[in-house]
Amino acid sequence: MNATTPVTVLGLGLMGRALAEKFLREGHATTVWNRTAARAEPLVAEGAELAGSVADAVAASPLVVVCVLDYDAVHALLDPVGDALDGRVLVNLTSGTSEGAREMAEWAAGHGATYLDGAILSDPDGVGTADAVILYSGPRAAFDAHEPVLKLLGGATTHLGEDHGLASLHDVAVLGLMWGVLNSFLQGAAVLGAAGVTASAFAPLATTSIKMVADWVNGYAEQVDKGEYPAPDATLNTHLASMNHLVHESESLGVNAEFPRFVKALAERSVADGHGADGYAAMIEIFRKPSATRE
Amino acid sequence: MNATTPVTVLGLGLMGRALAEKFLREGHATTVWNRTAARAEPLVAEGAELAGSVADAVAASPLVVVCVLDYDAVHALLDPVGDALDGRVLVNLTSGTSEGAREMAEWAAGHGATYLDGAILSDPDGVGTADAVILYSGPRAAFDAHEPVLKLLGGATTHLGEDHGLASLHDVAVLGLMWGVLNSFLQGAAVLGAAGVTASAFAPLATTSIKMVADWVNGYAEQVDKGEYPAPDATLNTHLASMNHLVHESESLGVNAEFPRFVKALAERSVADGHGADGYAAMIEIFRKPSATRE
Repeated sequence: MNATTPVTVLGLGLMGRALAEKFLREGHATTVWNRTAARAEPLVAEGAELAGSVADAVAASPLVVVCVLDYDAVHALLDPVGDALDGRVLVNLTSGTSEGAREMAEWAAGHGATYLDGAILSDPDGVGTADAVILYSGPRAAFDAHEPVLKLLGGATTHLGEDHGLASLHDVAVLGLMWGVLNSFLQGAAVLGAAGVTASAFAPLATTSIKMVADWVNGYAEQVDKGEYPAPDATLNTHLASMNHLVHESESLGVNAEFPRFVKALAERSVADGHGADGYAAMIEIFRKPSATRE
Repeated sequence: MNATTPVTVLGLGLMGRALAEKFLREGHATTVWNRTAARAEPLVAEGAELAGSVADAVAASPLVVVCVLDYDAVHALLDPVGDALDGRVLVNLTSGTSEGAREMAEWAAGHGATYLDGAILSDPDGVGTADAVILYSGPRAAFDAHEPVLKLLGGATTHLGEDHGLASLHDVAVLGLMWGVLNSFLQGAAVLGAAGVTASAFAPLATTSIKMVADWVNGYAEQVDKGEYPAPDATLNTHLASMNHLVHESESLGVNAEFPRFVKALAERSVADGHGADGYAAMIEIFRKPSATRE
């Protein structure tokens, strides 16, 4: 396959349109399909072929990219036309679970298709830029064959491994980081807001601090992998004392103290397990434990 | 005051020693004191004056820096020698609460001293570098008078405002960011670890992702301040769907699902409040609400 492989894009939400647009602008013969055909108009104006049916869209290209709401929507779209996928490479950029991805891979194999599962860690505006991270999992050979085309969608395109579930797992792990950063920023903004400091005034310090911690992650990861948690800087006991301060400040200022209390409770368990003199990475042992209860 | 103001450092833990060392190397007459005098030996070898008592140490310099375990330790040290502080500027770099800082300011004023409260957002190795962030709150005039000396300890030295509590509040807000980042990294490492991916393999993607989110903070802060939460990218409903995935993956892989469940429960409340179609910044309203219960 070369850089002018014809491609099909199924699903023209914000993200699907961004994908199709990038393929078009890079000179690929691009076939599109969407439940609401009107969404395709701007792309057709740029040269896309609007397929009359999903089956026609799938038949049009050796590389079929699908990006819809969820895996149920993927199945609703593709189940009726499974045989049309024979010999094609199906690239699913829809968000879902690792099980969903593995199950989809089996389904695709049953119809003679090669399956790559992908996760786009970028907003639609970032698609096609050098920084856009897109993660793939599934057969390495299929990824290698289409890498030049897939790389058009994001400069930081990566193949994670053969296990089809890896893209989804990395996706939620990264989203978890996002929620962790944003929630703790909002907690800080709430505390400082109650003391008369605007969120915008806090933001530059927050940004600097987050980036500083980002640079520690690699070191903590090594400790996690070694199972050794030295504390040349702050021990968990020291962290716990500061966590008490954040709980106390939140309560005193009358803002929500649940998040700090939750963080503190996790650390207390690690200290109770004997990690008080260890560094923060020792907390991995708490995160690895199965939860006591399920929802 | 100029760059050769004599300084006193009380408390020679890891951090106190780093502070005193920096002052010495920059040519300041530096008097030190520590409960265990032996800790002072390397500093004395570099030219520090070891005071025979706290009172002598305080008397030796117009600028007195204290960095000990907690505010109780500060009081234990200074309460007996309060009058020796008359006319001095007391800079407290000990970690504590905003109330503790305001109370200490009153106590210092009662003894004729000017009080600056500070928070060091750096480990001891970083002290004195251009990147080291040290936050101060208290009288602007006192900060301005000593800024050149204080700036020796950290290039990113900042005065936050007259309210003595601001340094402590910013300190815990920043520590909260650190815990938010590290906990969500460990959650991701636990999930991926259960799927056979090492923490070190996850770390580069995590670092990139954290820094990407750090660059969004300013935009979210503006939304928080405006009370408007547009969602050009992902709505809270979309986030919630992904949070369900992280809960599900954590449970399926047999790792701790409490953190994802907690994050999801917060978002559910925001959605229940009518913010499902808003962006993530709408969550500030959950963080601002007083907690239902206290510990």
